[in-house]
Amino acid sequence: MVDVAVIGAAGYAGIEAVRWVLAHPRLSLVMATSGADAGRRISSVYPALAGATDLAFADPNAEAIASSATVAILAVPHTAAMDLAPQLLDAGVTVIDLSADFRLTDASVYEEWYGVEHSAPDLLVDAVYGLPELNRSRLAGARLVACPGCYPTATILAAFPAFESGVAIGTRVVADAKSGVSGAGRSAIPGTHFVTVNESLLPYKVGSHRHTPEMEQALTGVAGHDVSVMFTPHLVPMSRGLLSTVYMDVEEGFTTAEAVELYRGRYHAEPFVTVHEAGVMPSTAEVRGGNRAAIGVHVDERTNTLVAVCAIDNLGKGSASQGIQCLNAVLGFPETEGLDVAGQVV
Amino acid sequence: MVDVAVIGAAGYAGIEAVRWVLAHPRLSLVMATSGADAGRRISSVYPALAGATDLAFADPNAEAIASSATVAILAVPHTAAMDLAPQLLDAGVTVIDLSADFRLTDASVYEEWYGVEHSAPDLLVDAVYGLPELNRSRLAGARLVACPGCYPTATILAAFPAFESGVAIGTRVVADAKSGVSGAGRSAIPGTHFVTVNESLLPYKVGSHRHTPEMEQALTGVAGHDVSVMFTPHLVPMSRGLLSTVYMDVEEGFTTAEAVELYRGRYHAEPFVTVHEAGVMPSTAEVRGGNRAAIGVHVDERTNTLVAVCAIDNLGKGSASQGIQCLNAVLGFPETEGLDVAGQVV
Amino acid sequence: MVDVAVIGAAGYAGIEAVRWVLAHPRLSLVMATSGADAGRRISSVYPALAGATDLAFADPNAEAIASSATVAILAVPHTAAMDLAPQLLDAGVTVIDLSADFRLTDASVYEEWYGVEHSAPDLLVDAVYGLPELNRSRLAGARLVACPGCYPTATILAAFPAFESGVAIGTRVVADAKSGVSGAGRSAIPGTHFVTVNESLLPYKVGSHRHTPEMEQALTGVAGHDVSVMFTPHLVPMSRGLLSTVYMDVEEGFTTAEAVELYRGRYHAEPFVTVHEAGVMPSTAEVRGGNRAAIGVHVDERTNTLVAVCAIDNLGKGSASQGIQCLNAVLGFPETEGLDVAGQVV
Amino acid sequence: MVDVAVIGAAGYAGIEAVRWVLAHPRLSLVMATSGADAGRRISSVYPALAGATDLAFADPNAEAIASSATVAILAVPHTAAMDLAPQLLDAGVTVIDLSADFRLTDASVYEEWYGVEHSAPDLLVDAVYGLPELNRSRLAGARLVACPGCYPTATILAAFPAFESGVAIGTRVVADAKSGVSGAGRSAIPGTHFVTVNESLLPYKVGSHRHTPEMEQALTGVAGHDVSVMFTPHLVPMSRGLLSTVYMDVEEGFTTAEAVELYRGRYHAEPFVTVHEAGVMPSTAEVRGGNRAAIGVHVDERTNTLVAVCAIDNLGKGSASQGIQCLNAVLGFPETEGLDVAGQVV
Repeated sequence: MVDVAVIGAAGYAGIEAVRWVLAHPRLSLVMATSGADAGRRISSVYPALAGATDLAFADPNAEAIASSATVAILAVPHTAAMDLAPQLLDAGVTVIDLSADFRLTDASVYEEWYGVEHSAPDLLVDAVYGLPELNRSRLAGARLVACPGCYPTATILAAFPAFESGVAIGTRVVADAKSGVSGAGRSAIPGTHFVTVNESLLPYKVGSHRHTPEMEQALTGVAGHDVSVMFTPHLVPMSRGLLSTVYMDVEEGFTTAEAVELYRGRYHAEPFVTVHEAGVMPSTAEVRGGNRAAIGVHVDERTNTLVAVCAIDNLGKGSASQGIQCLNAVLGFPETEGLDVAGQVV
Repeated sequence: MVDVAVIGAAGYAGIEAVRWVLAHPRLSLVMATSGADAGRRISSVYPALAGATDLAFADPNAEAIASSATVAILAVPHTAAMDLAPQLLDAGVTVIDLSADFRLTDASVYEEWYGVEHSAPDLLVDAVYGLPELNRSRLAGARLVACPGCYPTATILAAFPAFESGVAIGTRVVADAKSGVSGAGRSAIPGTHFVTVNESLLPYKVGSHRHTPEMEQALTGVAGHDVSVMFTPHLVPMSRGLLSTVYMDVEEGFTTAEAVELYRGRYHAEPFVTVHEAGVMPSTAEVRGGNRAAIGVHVDERTNTLVAVCAIDNLGKGSASQGIQCLNAVLGFPETEGLDVAGQVV
Repeated sequence: MVDVAVIGAAGYAGIEAVRWVLAHPRLSLVMATSGADAGRRISSVYPALAGATDLAFADPNAEAIASSATVAILAVPHTAAMDLAPQLLDAGVTVIDLSADFRLTDASVYEEWYGVEHSAPDLLVDAVYGLPELNRSRLAGARLVACPGCYPTATILAAFPAFESGVAIGTRVVADAKSGVSGAGRSAIPGTHFVTVNESLLPYKVGSHRHTPEMEQALTGVAGHDVSVMFTPHLVPMSRGLLSTVYMDVEEGFTTAEAVELYRGRYHAEPFVTVHEAGVMPSTAEVRGGNRAAIGVHVDERTNTLVAVCAIDNLGKGSASQGIQCLNAVLGFPETEGLDVAGQVV
Repeated sequence: MVDVAVIGAAGYAGIEAVRWVLAHPRLSLVMATSGADAGRRISSVYPALAGATDLAFADPNAEAIASSATVAILAVPHTAAMDLAPQLLDAGVTVIDLSADFRLTDASVYEEWYGVEHSAPDLLVDAVYGLPELNRSRLAGARLVACPGCYPTATILAAFPAFESGVAIGTRVVADAKSGVSGAGRSAIPGTHFVTVNESLLPYKVGSHRHTPEMEQALTGVAGHDVSVMFTPHLVPMSRGLLSTVYMDVEEGFTTAEAVELYRGRYHAEPFVTVHEAGVMPSTAEVRGGNRAAIGVHVDERTNTLVAVCAIDNLGKGSASQGIQCLNAVLGFPETEGLDVAGQVV
């Protein structure tokens, strides 16, 4: 058993990571930290976990983490991760970071979008972007994995077969994405009040969301040329689920059948990606509670546009369970280990 | 008082039309028909209308309608409208049609997208497309008004200032739209079951939705050149509300400030259109229950893309209350007559 | 026109009061105060009111209120009302209080349940409990009206015909009530976070909710003997709506038909109360957005239990619009003035 | 591995049973039947199960079931189960029945409440009521288990410690219960349309719901005297979850602390029942997706009323997973086998 600590475990991504670690046959949860809830039993804060664990939230302390765990999953806000990761790495702890701090390879891009100086730029070179479908070969044995954001996971999975293959010919991608409210975090703010969100739909941070450069970095990497993403996130009145509808330019004559073939070819060996047949689009419901990504593609021959839609659970493949998938890859376990559960049908 | 009959009054758009007519100081509801619910009191089918009306649903019969009403609002499925409208027009009844049957000026386009032959193609020339913001001059005294679909209303309002002014330079528009479930109609089908829709988000009819040619007709009309719309509708877990996020190409250097100025200039005299300041996007909540359209615009200078977002109530400005607005224009009433209510804030 | 100020206007009850005043043909909104949002335009905080008013929220200040308004609707927290009301009354302003401060006639009961000493106990004698269906005769010309809480409104309307008539024979009533989230107020707290509330149902303050003595006072008053209420509120994942299911003991042989006759007899002249026929129960949907209360009754002859269910909109008949109904009665207007709108059917 | 067939597998309870069987280490899913969906792959009807099973729905046929399975879980409507069970039992198949057909020991009570003659009354004697917490001793080796309905599970778990111990002194229990929409089944009917259910709360079948006699049978059994249940179910706008708020008379002086002690004493060895400390009430969210029941108790000393609240997942402990718990008991497995999963926290 590998001893795992989850840092920032009281937030939504953190507590989901806790659940997946508890369910994993080869991982052992030795610590779960929370600054705000330190000292409280996990099952007292989250009664759904009654019976699943007797642990209490601990104070987040690098020494304590390093003395008990060999792996730390960081579910902390950005900037907190870049403070903590170097200490953990120095102490020999493998770090699976769910935050934004190590996703961008260029510290200046980080500083431009996040508005703060990066305090550990040297680590950016070694950090592995934790999207196994794109980056599997670098994950085995990695010391620091920077898991993608929820929006980038869905958007990149929807777009990169088209760019990798050269089918997508433009330099601009329109990514119109929609997320459930858990993506906004556990803090009680006016924007997450039930009455504000319920029966409403709202775009936000149009063209300025911090997940944008991460998508561009990944797509530019596979395209071999600059790719810009026109990204619009929307808040949807549901707790979980994220769907990105991606529009790409293709050559005249490219068909839906060819698109399905392309995507199925690219993903056929992927245990967590389903490509639907022509005419079928994914819903967020079908991936709820699991690590799967479901993709549907359609070519509009009137406008030579490839529409690729990817649905994920924002807390699953978009965060915590993707972290576990990466950790499996790092440790040499089958990637499906501990993640092989049937999705929630209702 | 003008005597009004609402045809197909038991569906969501129909019963909303009933409500608006009841609330209107210069309209009198003389008949509300429903094939399925004929004979039942309206307030028995819709208890929310207890006290508001004692009428029962009547059988839809052209002669009976013509003998009691001078205006008929048709909230019937497509094909039913083109069967009924000629009879009503012949009998001297003014027709406000909320269906799709008279929106397209070219019968062959209708047949291509709706898969049926148009039975009253001669009327297409005279039918006035009922979007007052675009087409006000033709509404006064019109005999047959073809009100836009919910998706076209939001999409056209979001896009046409940019095309009319020449700011939008491309021939393709990406319209990524999201609708509440009432847009799918009142029929109980698997796709409207609470458990199917709740906590889910689903794109459907990607690139093939029948509202597409209607948008293209309107935008091509103002652009002076062919405009194609890459249209993707999504079903959102909420009862009411519709939002269209529209992406258009603009010249390098065009700014958000200029876009706000353009849209505010175009809409400043419109009583039902609000253009938000830069940085503010509309939510469907802010237009719930009323006839307003709320618009936000943003220019992404990285990709020279103008993002224009329009939120409406799909049963309001997207259907029934827009019909009333058109009727006001037809009858020479102030367009706000009977529609001038404060929106629901919660 | 009567000049009205709404105090605490940025909360949910307050902004609803603003809406009703704006829609009322004989009331004029001259001021809307909010400590937190003072200086901001109402339509900026609540974009749904764009076009409906140009007012900005003002600072809550007794002198300013008294200098501009003849009526003040208080939508402030308890204790704030008892501080403000005496000043307003002294200045000649009529006070419609939506808070709890003047509902209980006995200051010691107030202190027992609210945990604070009452600062204006002398006013309790003159305050009129603002449930017109129970207390109409005292409303005309009243200077201080204490509108009932949302739970008491529904529970009392469901129970009092049975106690008034002597049909309810016990001294204990079980009131199992369920409310939408707007009842919890506009503050962003963990308990109102979308993710906490959505897909969940939660009882709270079982047997200890502060609305309990108010129900007991009203029912004891009509019963002529002590009536205790065993009250359990529940939080339901919806924005608006409140339903109270009330269980009362009746003599063997009492039937549902007799119950319907009793309730219809009691309420037949009430413009805002609908009593359904036997076998039909009210839903919160049917009273959404209006001032109506819908009641269904059933006698379980197996257990000699009368079940009376009352559905209201917690922000309507449960708060703001009931305040307007009371104000109409105070001013000698028809009670339906400005409230006579068709309910929302969708 | 024990070979299991799920009959009626395309409904909500059925497909949940499929999921639990797939996840169970000692059960093997050999067949899943559906009349309506026969021939379609399970993962095509329920895409959430992509990757989890390659089975297609089979026609429900007793011979085919018996030839492949040693256990059949019946998730069929009432009357269908009493037709099928005798054939399966004759063929040596163990039957776990999730329907109502074998829950009542008296065929005449069945006929009174269900309105049809019981076609297999001889089996009623041997059928074991499948509530392990009440009836564990009879489950080992049982051939026919009649699992309780969702409402009875929650209501009985909330009430029986009080009746078993003699603490509950009356003969009438008020059970005010609330259920998510999946409890209404998968059929698309007006009452399950999203727009009907969303933002609404509705009591139904007050005093006449068919689950009533089942509760009375169980409580009368433990009380040693007749117990009548005044039962009111309500439909709540959420997909899953059920909560029953039960009111019982107790002697003066009985306290909340004593109630907590009583319930904790009764349930301390139960793996799937959590009794909260005084002052804490359960929410349906905390039991979502699992087999747990969460109970909170409170004594209102003003009215000598014990309020016991039980929350379950209507498709979990209220149906499918309780069937698995029973099957574990029948087969001599630990009851937690295959059910020992952490609940969904978001």
